[in-house]
Amino acid sequence: MEFVKGNAMVGQSGGPTSAINATLAGVYKAARDSAYIETMYGLVHGIQGLLQGDVVDMSVKLKTDEDLDLLASTPSAYLGSCRFKLPKEEDKPEIYEKIFEMFKNHNVKYFFYIGGNDSMDTVYKLSRYAVKIGYEINIMGVPKTIDNDLAVTDHTPGFGSAAKYIATATREVSRDASVYPSKCVTIMEIMGRNAGWLTAATALARGGNCSAPDLIYVPELMFNIEKFLEDVRRVSEKKSSVIVAVSEGAKINKDTYVCEALSKGETDAFGHKHLSGTARVLADMVTDVLGIKTRQIEFGLLQRCAAHCSSATDIAESRMIGAAAVEAAVNGATGEMMYFVRESGSPYRVSVARMDIAKIANVERVIPREWINAEGNDITQEAIDYMLPLIQGEAPVFIEDGVPRHAVLK
Amino acid sequence: MEFVKGNAMVGQSGGPTSAINATLAGVYKAARDSAYIETMYGLVHGIQGLLQGDVVDMSVKLKTDEDLDLLASTPSAYLGSCRFKLPKEEDKPEIYEKIFEMFKNHNVKYFFYIGGNDSMDTVYKLSRYAVKIGYEINIMGVPKTIDNDLAVTDHTPGFGSAAKYIATATREVSRDASVYPSKCVTIMEIMGRNAGWLTAATALARGGNCSAPDLIYVPELMFNIEKFLEDVRRVSEKKSSVIVAVSEGAKINKDTYVCEALSKGETDAFGHKHLSGTARVLADMVTDVLGIKTRQIEFGLLQRCAAHCSSATDIAESRMIGAAAVEAAVNGATGEMMYFVRESGSPYRVSVARMDIAKIANVERVIPREWINAEGNDITQEAIDYMLPLIQGEAPVFIEDGVPRHAVLK
Repeated sequence: MEFVKGNAMVGQSGGPTSAINATLAGVYKAARDSAYIETMYGLVHGIQGLLQGDVVDMSVKLKTDEDLDLLASTPSAYLGSCRFKLPKEEDKPEIYEKIFEMFKNHNVKYFFYIGGNDSMDTVYKLSRYAVKIGYEINIMGVPKTIDNDLAVTDHTPGFGSAAKYIATATREVSRDASVYPSKCVTIMEIMGRNAGWLTAATALARGGNCSAPDLIYVPELMFNIEKFLEDVRRVSEKKSSVIVAVSEGAKINKDTYVCEALSKGETDAFGHKHLSGTARVLADMVTDVLGIKTRQIEFGLLQRCAAHCSSATDIAESRMIGAAAVEAAVNGATGEMMYFVRESGSPYRVSVARMDIAKIANVERVIPREWINAEGNDITQEAIDYMLPLIQGEAPVFIEDGVPRHAVLK
Repeated sequence: MEFVKGNAMVGQSGGPTSAINATLAGVYKAARDSAYIETMYGLVHGIQGLLQGDVVDMSVKLKTDEDLDLLASTPSAYLGSCRFKLPKEEDKPEIYEKIFEMFKNHNVKYFFYIGGNDSMDTVYKLSRYAVKIGYEINIMGVPKTIDNDLAVTDHTPGFGSAAKYIATATREVSRDASVYPSKCVTIMEIMGRNAGWLTAATALARGGNCSAPDLIYVPELMFNIEKFLEDVRRVSEKKSSVIVAVSEGAKINKDTYVCEALSKGETDAFGHKHLSGTARVLADMVTDVLGIKTRQIEFGLLQRCAAHCSSATDIAESRMIGAAAVEAAVNGATGEMMYFVRESGSPYRVSVARMDIAKIANVERVIPREWINAEGNDITQEAIDYMLPLIQGEAPVFIEDGVPRHAVLK
């Protein structure tokens, strides 16, 4: 086998996570230390930046291992991200020509793209095009998403940190909710349109004297409003503080979100209509129908960027999978996606593998039915056992003047 | 001076914070170690619990110093809280009789109440009543509130931890907001109806390559909608990601909250009207009038219970002020409130003092005008210098299975 020496490029794409920069740190460190990679360029705002020539030499700002540790602890995308679906070559050949002109001008022999499904599609299309035009380059994809909804991989880089924050916040909210003696139902709304992994992660708050959440509704099953009210009524007879976790993606039928079904829509001062959130409409309904005081909490954006509460396991694995992508590429791999294989559940042990991207169906991986309880209002111990290793350990945070310091490109 | 030997009671009241249990730990440890206090009883749900005879012996569950460290790291109120304003003696003498009957039955010679303004009012009324009926008891108040809006004290226990979480989250949100190249205005809504201290704490995110927030609106000044739009327009011409912090209590005039002025109110499926949040109505307005994409975030409940991100300074001071209350009481003090005096700003050094509660006017302490900039869209360096020492250090967190463990009474 012949090793190719040249430069490399790396880009980040899709929604931010707390771990995508750890993967970038893993890619860059392995590239920096590789005898086959000379200069590593970063794409500012992914493929979109590449098309505009917005490319930086990664070594300028990342000089030491401490710089890489800081990068690995920084949420969001250091290089910036984009939401850009690469068109088909036959529709826009000029885009492909432009990208490969950039590759050629920068003597790029290795290309790494960290992102979700669209990014893997980009990897697939570019690697096929390279073969077609006979440009020698190894192109690898590294997955990331807080939603944990990618097929093939045991779990996604980024999920563990989001899950750890959600479990931590759930436990804190349940403490807060227990403070008054009066009856109260607290409804927490968690991210995830189609896959309920993040909502299920609220169950990791249980244990250590914490019984919350009492009820968990994932979007994998249709949401039955009557059943929900009956569940809440039943639990509230036994305890004064009831904690409910519900996915933002909960639907009463395949076309109708809960928030659409229950909100008549708000009209703002400009005459525009807005839908309320799922937690809010459910909280209002519990108050109206059951006469119980309610509170509602949307966990919001911090689910994907609360890096001060990242999982050490997630951050270490995210670095590892980035480094493995570089190793694979310099060993000749191309058009492949890196993924995790769980070698053992207890003790938890994962390895990194890779697969031809052409074989990876663009399928969302949802929670299997058997990991949701029969009643559809909780998850099973198997689901907890699967998730628990992913939130272990506290990733290093670099505090300066009382707040976490971050690596910032510009 | 004669030292009185007997039992003690402690209660918690008002809204939860991340530090009120640290004060409880301080009170309990000092009481446990005092030669003058035999048994320390805890009131379950404050005065309300006392009236119902719901009282626990604190030593049953808190046995070791490690138990107290865990308690100090636990958010919300370990003993439970209440919102109970003690009526005047002339209106409800039977309540006073009942309370002092409980004191007598439990041989209570010391009483400590941790809470906000209403709790200090309770301390005042009970200590006067004790003198009137000639019951020998020393009654002390220890303040707490995340809002930092109490007079006399340099700052309140609980504020520093809330401020640290808010500063941390602001920095993380600003990283998240920088990820796409397109223009975007992010509006963060922070707690605080009348005092803007928590909203001002977003400024502690600045530094370390973070310039957010770009604009800060505290409720001490009336909110001018035209000026706000002009501010946002101006900043957005210079940078693509604009971060705005606004208090939930922002008002356009003394009777009208911003959310009331801009929301026509939402009608839910049951015909009830609800107002949108301040951040949401402002975000909608920016989109409508300036045509810029917006996001809105309510920091919500975690502002007061994110103990995984507590300030070590706040937690240590909260323990200290609790212990000082016990020391003062066994030395004969009664009818007083403990408070902080800032001996020095740099290096930061505080001492604990006490004051006759009768002299403490029930006044909200808001941000002084000179600590808000002339334009009314930011705070000054003096305000930052005042707040910065309060968020220093990371309080210990006891992690088990990946999430913080808490001390739980029942």
